[in-house]
Amino acid sequence: MPEKSPQVGIIMGSQSDWPTMKHAADTLDALGVAYEKRIVSAHRTPQRLVEYATTARLRGLKIIIAGAGGAAHLPGMVASMTPLPVFGVPIESKSLKGQDSLLSIVQMPGGVPVGTLAIGKAGAINAALLSGSVLALNDQKIADALDTWRMRQTEAVAIEPIDEV
Amino acid sequence: MPEKSPQVGIIMGSQSDWPTMKHAADTLDALGVAYEKRIVSAHRTPQRLVEYATTARLRGLKIIIAGAGGAAHLPGMVASMTPLPVFGVPIESKSLKGQDSLLSIVQMPGGVPVGTLAIGKAGAINAALLSGSVLALNDQKIADALDTWRMRQTEAVAIEPIDEV
Amino acid sequence: MPEKSPQVGIIMGSQSDWPTMKHAADTLDALGVAYEKRIVSAHRTPQRLVEYATTARLRGLKIIIAGAGGAAHLPGMVASMTPLPVFGVPIESKSLKGQDSLLSIVQMPGGVPVGTLAIGKAGAINAALLSGSVLALNDQKIADALDTWRMRQTEAVAIEPIDEV
Amino acid sequence: MPEKSPQVGIIMGSQSDWPTMKHAADTLDALGVAYEKRIVSAHRTPQRLVEYATTARLRGLKIIIAGAGGAAHLPGMVASMTPLPVFGVPIESKSLKGQDSLLSIVQMPGGVPVGTLAIGKAGAINAALLSGSVLALNDQKIADALDTWRMRQTEAVAIEPIDEV
Amino acid sequence: MPEKSPQVGIIMGSQSDWPTMKHAADTLDALGVAYEKRIVSAHRTPQRLVEYATTARLRGLKIIIAGAGGAAHLPGMVASMTPLPVFGVPIESKSLKGQDSLLSIVQMPGGVPVGTLAIGKAGAINAALLSGSVLALNDQKIADALDTWRMRQTEAVAIEPIDEV
Amino acid sequence: MPEKSPQVGIIMGSQSDWPTMKHAADTLDALGVAYEKRIVSAHRTPQRLVEYATTARLRGLKIIIAGAGGAAHLPGMVASMTPLPVFGVPIESKSLKGQDSLLSIVQMPGGVPVGTLAIGKAGAINAALLSGSVLALNDQKIADALDTWRMRQTEAVAIEPIDEV
Amino acid sequence: MPEKSPQVGIIMGSQSDWPTMKHAADTLDALGVAYEKRIVSAHRTPQRLVEYATTARLRGLKIIIAGAGGAAHLPGMVASMTPLPVFGVPIESKSLKGQDSLLSIVQMPGGVPVGTLAIGKAGAINAALLSGSVLALNDQKIADALDTWRMRQTEAVAIEPIDEV
Amino acid sequence: MPEKSPQVGIIMGSQSDWPTMKHAADTLDALGVAYEKRIVSAHRTPQRLVEYATTARLRGLKIIIAGAGGAAHLPGMVASMTPLPVFGVPIESKSLKGQDSLLSIVQMPGGVPVGTLAIGKAGAINAALLSGSVLALNDQKIADALDTWRMRQTEAVAIEPIDEV
Repeated sequence: MPEKSPQVGIIMGSQSDWPTMKHAADTLDALGVAYEKRIVSAHRTPQRLVEYATTARLRGLKIIIAGAGGAAHLPGMVASMTPLPVFGVPIESKSLKGQDSLLSIVQMPGGVPVGTLAIGKAGAINAALLSGSVLALNDQKIADALDTWRMRQTEAVAIEPIDEV
Repeated sequence: MPEKSPQVGIIMGSQSDWPTMKHAADTLDALGVAYEKRIVSAHRTPQRLVEYATTARLRGLKIIIAGAGGAAHLPGMVASMTPLPVFGVPIESKSLKGQDSLLSIVQMPGGVPVGTLAIGKAGAINAALLSGSVLALNDQKIADALDTWRMRQTEAVAIEPIDEV
Repeated sequence: MPEKSPQVGIIMGSQSDWPTMKHAADTLDALGVAYEKRIVSAHRTPQRLVEYATTARLRGLKIIIAGAGGAAHLPGMVASMTPLPVFGVPIESKSLKGQDSLLSIVQMPGGVPVGTLAIGKAGAINAALLSGSVLALNDQKIADALDTWRMRQTEAVAIEPIDEV
Repeated sequence: MPEKSPQVGIIMGSQSDWPTMKHAADTLDALGVAYEKRIVSAHRTPQRLVEYATTARLRGLKIIIAGAGGAAHLPGMVASMTPLPVFGVPIESKSLKGQDSLLSIVQMPGGVPVGTLAIGKAGAINAALLSGSVLALNDQKIADALDTWRMRQTEAVAIEPIDEV
Repeated sequence: MPEKSPQVGIIMGSQSDWPTMKHAADTLDALGVAYEKRIVSAHRTPQRLVEYATTARLRGLKIIIAGAGGAAHLPGMVASMTPLPVFGVPIESKSLKGQDSLLSIVQMPGGVPVGTLAIGKAGAINAALLSGSVLALNDQKIADALDTWRMRQTEAVAIEPIDEV
Repeated sequence: MPEKSPQVGIIMGSQSDWPTMKHAADTLDALGVAYEKRIVSAHRTPQRLVEYATTARLRGLKIIIAGAGGAAHLPGMVASMTPLPVFGVPIESKSLKGQDSLLSIVQMPGGVPVGTLAIGKAGAINAALLSGSVLALNDQKIADALDTWRMRQTEAVAIEPIDEV
Repeated sequence: MPEKSPQVGIIMGSQSDWPTMKHAADTLDALGVAYEKRIVSAHRTPQRLVEYATTARLRGLKIIIAGAGGAAHLPGMVASMTPLPVFGVPIESKSLKGQDSLLSIVQMPGGVPVGTLAIGKAGAINAALLSGSVLALNDQKIADALDTWRMRQTEAVAIEPIDEV
Repeated sequence: MPEKSPQVGIIMGSQSDWPTMKHAADTLDALGVAYEKRIVSAHRTPQRLVEYATTARLRGLKIIIAGAGGAAHLPGMVASMTPLPVFGVPIESKSLKGQDSLLSIVQMPGGVPVGTLAIGKAGAINAALLSGSVLALNDQKIADALDTWRMRQTEAVAIEPIDEV
């Protein structure tokens, strides 16, 4: 089977964000969604940011998932330079535990949206699932994969809690 | 021209959220996106919530925008009952100024995503624009409208600030 | 002695909440209050939530203790679907240490109350004690058990602190 | 009809809390629950606090609703001196908007519970409704009144938001 | 030398506060100030609280240092029942790191002051030093000890930082 | 009657703090405590700060009450240069409502204490009352005035709240 | 006198920031520092941002003062594209009062600094004064103007507060 | 090569701040900027503070980098006594994780600026880089070093994240 061209671009501000953002990649894998992953630092590689954001649509990407921490400018700056939907994942920061990341991503001014997910791993998983929801609107295979994923999630919830040993 | 069937459902917890959520409606109007608007209170009308969420896809909706304040459960509960993308708008609350609304919407557990926008008016506008971005992936007319909207926004930014009289 | 039918339902969003919520169960045991314990995820098992909440009174439950973390919707959603008293326990979350859980539970709109306890273990213990207080209004045995519990608690407070070795 | 003896004691730290706590009184009126209302300042009238709390059960009260602001000690201190259920209402404070009141009330140590409601008016209404839920466990009339109240609340939610003039 | 009768009462809500409050005791030792130390729980031993606070002046105490965590009511309640100066030490709490303790202690209403120190160990040391300052107003020996303590503290500050091995 | 020499120095960072700090002055008047009031800006008049703090004891002052807002350095810096007790009043700031003022005053390092009161008017009143408590340890007249003040405060608390017209 | 070429660029995200940023301009006027003022929106005019930032040094600017609110990306993004010193002014935002602006500006990752000033008007004034300090290192005229400004500020502090009428 | 006289003074409140502030020193080393490092405690060595701040310009320093934690008064107090640019680094504190340090440093009143960097290590590095930017305005060697530093930083950013072993 030929490799599918990526529909989702997962970008992050630094290598240290990968342990969090990997959960987005794994979840897209589970849904059968092709993606690429890149390090794009708004602050350390601003040219790469401009290039990535302004060419994303042309290159066939449909959604961008951007993870960043602290004064997290990556999701919002990408959103300012592409008409594609951008989903932001606040990375848990050291001192402020992601409260700075969250506010830096979610409090965008009217005109340039970033759909923001929860801080950390849960947010990374959910950015992938939300991307799945969007792609599922026009892709029955992904829609089915998402329905299956959700059904299995529901089935996996035990009836009664158990003491752990 | 026959009325288009709604692609976006704008729901909110109460009538008092409308002055905020109206900005989402106005922005969808500007993009030429058909929508419906409903009051669905997670707490006061839980049956309506279940019915709305579980039938949304069948009724042809593609995206749900949900605004709520305080212990804002509407966006997350809708997201738990539909595979459609859900975008949440935290309404500015009286005492805590929307900090409670924001955290109640954005901090969803892994598995059930809500793409969260900024608190208040900016968030409502952006929920509509993000919906436009999603629909534009498969609707050139909306894509063009969105491009126009963004271009006009850019053009409207003055070069130099002026003293207001 | 035949098993008493449960008066209190302890529910929680996931297995990972049990180490906290177990303190509620242990405290109810100490007061001689019969209870059941269930995992009911507002987000992953919304149908189970609806069924649990809407049948709780009919099944003879008198009080529901609900523990949840992050965007903690379980206590409030249960409260929207049952006239029984609902007591909420904010589970300590990873990044925000339960501040999100607390606000998501306590800031309910006028009309649908959740009596909220402290974040974590103390809150779980206290949800059980508060349930005991409520049941004690019409159950002298529980009232006596509660009085004894409180008296012992008072007696257990040492006069002077000691250095730990 | 002879005056019913009060089942609920509404207490508050000062006269300035009354505009908030009046909503608790009005809601109890709507449910047909008899109550008394008193100013009991934990800090300015500690003797009154001790007397009120230690005699509450003997005087026939079943529930205490306590509203307080800032370093809000009233609910917790009453709870330390009575086995009755105590529900706390954080009053919105001037500088910190009730965040201090909320934390001072809800973060009780394991052993002495206060069921805490939302900051301000919503919390006052809900303290009354939660009291109704508790009393309804053994009073069919209150149970019916509560069911009616909830049903009317549900019915009062409009289907579609309207522009206000 | 006969034991001096205590001038300062160090009280705390529980044994678990002692590792923090011990720093207050050690600092008073360093200043040559006699003190007593007691566990007085506002919530678990309210009678002991009343007795301690109302008899403190008669028993010859001049200052009370009170440490407490979470919904920290001890300092404020003692202050409501004694005309003696009360200094409060917020104990670092588990989830909220002492933010709840701090606000519960410092945000006292006009009329009942608690002089509040920093969260944790620094606050405990400083409560002792502040007590020393107060006693030094009428006790030259303590004044001298305090001056010496401060001088030594100043002298102990190195000129240049060194790498630790 | 000859003017008494001041026992308390009320200082503040700027003229704009006076509407708050005036409550400290008025309360000292009510207790019959002589005081002086000065504007001493830690940032705009650092020399005046040094001079004021280092000469305070020599000039016969016994206590310093310092009010400041924002990055409120005045109380802590005075405390670093005088062995007298220093009580700090956080002034309510514009954006952060005194949260910055409070943390800047209360979180002093071990070694240099500032007894911190509540944000704003309540804190100013309480700084005066706490000063009264300290002076009362060796001044029966002030002790009596304080007892009277507290008694009247207690008596002024109404039994039942009344609707305001 | 010919117009001096600007040494400082004052930029801001929107016209609505001007009432705040005007204080920076006025203060630079008082110091005799030439400046230009521009609206450069990181989100609505990203190309203008890139152009402004990348050409700033070539055009002879020495310092950039950037004001922005909410998810305030302007200061940090400019700093990522110019080696000039960048000073950031958090604009007071509607819901979160500038807490979001502050964290979005100050919490920059190691490698790309923004010297951040206080929220709002004070920050705007101080960004100008800090720019003056920097330029004064190599411009005696500005150094003198700054010394005069500071001296006058010190002299303007009254000795004693007065009641306002 | 003779030792260059220091252009930057790195000061900090205590030895315990050095592990953080060392990153500022290392970064200045990398830029070839001469510096001195001193412990100057605003609270424990106020005289040293006054002397350091008031003589800094005369001694040839051009910039002061000040790190402090908790009620962090050092940067602001130095800024009040020197016309040199002062850059502040909030040290991560134990309980409040540097939120107190940040607000105590950044929220300076209009008139006395402190350019504030991020909490902790990132802030220390950035204080040095910002100092480099300032010195580079009149020192081509430092300008070149800074450009090199930034270029290398950009080059060091990998294209794609890798799993860590």
